[in-house]
Amino acid sequence: MQRLNGKETAKQIRTELKDKVNLRKQMGQKTPHLAAVLIGNDGGSLSYVTAKVKACEEIGFESTLIRYEDSISEDALLDKVHELNDDETIDGFIVQLPLPEHINEIKVTDTISPNKDVDGFHPMNLGNMMLNLPGFLPATPAGIIELIRRYNIETSGKHCVIIGRSNIVGTPLSMMLSRNSNPGNCTVTLAHSRTKNLKEICLQADILIAAIGKPNFVSADMVKENAVIIDVGTTRVDDASRERGWRLVGDVNFNEVSPKASFITPVPGGVGPMTIASLMMNTLKAMELNGK
Amino acid sequence: MQRLNGKETAKQIRTELKDKVNLRKQMGQKTPHLAAVLIGNDGGSLSYVTAKVKACEEIGFESTLIRYEDSISEDALLDKVHELNDDETIDGFIVQLPLPEHINEIKVTDTISPNKDVDGFHPMNLGNMMLNLPGFLPATPAGIIELIRRYNIETSGKHCVIIGRSNIVGTPLSMMLSRNSNPGNCTVTLAHSRTKNLKEICLQADILIAAIGKPNFVSADMVKENAVIIDVGTTRVDDASRERGWRLVGDVNFNEVSPKASFITPVPGGVGPMTIASLMMNTLKAMELNGK
Repeated sequence: MQRLNGKETAKQIRTELKDKVNLRKQMGQKTPHLAAVLIGNDGGSLSYVTAKVKACEEIGFESTLIRYEDSISEDALLDKVHELNDDETIDGFIVQLPLPEHINEIKVTDTISPNKDVDGFHPMNLGNMMLNLPGFLPATPAGIIELIRRYNIETSGKHCVIIGRSNIVGTPLSMMLSRNSNPGNCTVTLAHSRTKNLKEICLQADILIAAIGKPNFVSADMVKENAVIIDVGTTRVDDASRERGWRLVGDVNFNEVSPKASFITPVPGGVGPMTIASLMMNTLKAMELNGK
Repeated sequence: MQRLNGKETAKQIRTELKDKVNLRKQMGQKTPHLAAVLIGNDGGSLSYVTAKVKACEEIGFESTLIRYEDSISEDALLDKVHELNDDETIDGFIVQLPLPEHINEIKVTDTISPNKDVDGFHPMNLGNMMLNLPGFLPATPAGIIELIRRYNIETSGKHCVIIGRSNIVGTPLSMMLSRNSNPGNCTVTLAHSRTKNLKEICLQADILIAAIGKPNFVSADMVKENAVIIDVGTTRVDDASRERGWRLVGDVNFNEVSPKASFITPVPGGVGPMTIASLMMNTLKAMELNGK
């Protein structure tokens, strides 16, 4: 069993990006600039955005954090999105989700220019992904693909079972792994809450990806010998032994499953760090695409 | 075994649309108007477009057929697309594919306004489909969904295996059947040319959909008892006994497979007529969406 070390891989990607940025600086070229809009004071959202800003700093990207109170109106937020779309110094930006209830998330996502949509959530980018055309890939699925690529895991002709059909992980990942690309060319089964015989289906998986947010859901009896296991789950579970009072738990029962796996991502330190690395790669790409 | 009679169902849909159009006429409202752009003299393309125009006439939709020689430049075609986008009398339009080699199909598709894209090929419409948001669904998959709906075939929790990952059938259909909708909520496996153990995978299918364009590819030993069989294939095969010299053959060996099936689409008269019915439904929807 080999661990898919997302933390180390993400670090490697940050180093590569840093080298690229330094080279650009030496040549007097622009450095990538990511803006992040954060609304309210949710602890999870704040820590995600902080990690993104920190990654920018480490790599040498410019970053701008824009914070609003929960009370901001939809119109005011949409005005800001238009301003960021038009701001030539900003290469890409994200509006951290979830948004307060009085703001229409779909409207906000659709208003972001597809050319600056480094989260890859815009329908135009998802449609282009489905057609295997250039565009921004959603950060978490793209991070998983990058991890698979860097560990030289063969995917062509493999049966990949994905548990969970979310818009940001399971569904786009099913597209990315089934297209004619490398990594890709998998036979993909997309399973979800309505799936019957889930165990039987999972047992067929050469590559099993769990993205449902149910701690320790995947047990050893659901896994084929030598399967590749990717765990996207990160649920906060109370843990009095930790100073902060909680720990992150994945969708896979790691202790039970890992002895059967050929490769497996730990939680934390697996998929999570790759998501931010993807966002950084998308930001550099945004700058290049916009011809700077 | 019950045949899924697409020909009859499409006729029923045309009657319903005709009634709606008549009601609109009585109320002095606009009737839907579909434009079709046809380039060159390919026999297949000409017969598809002719069938679409004929369907419009039967229902009482207005239709405009715009024909160009193969030699039309990309710029001239794009100008026409812009003109149709801006023409308020046109509710929806299609540019019949394939296009001559010197014209970039992706550029043409992307230039069509998503609000008039009644073929449902624009990335914006595909992305919205993935997100289960309003938009135009690609005509063939939408026709299959409509056929399943009208025959009250249960899909929730069923295992659906789709053979073929094309951009216009297999891939979008995999999304539509896996989303949380009715019909939908299937566990979907998308199989294709790189799939290993195809027979074993097909044998698990409660609903088996073949969309690869290989005559009689699906044999009885690949089909589970009582499966629902949807055959999207329509390959022209030489047939000296027919006056026109060919006949349409599906991807499924109908004679062999039909005794095992609970429902099965014939070829011709199954999925084919539903595609045009979908296009007509999309055209009415386009008019309604554009507030007329």
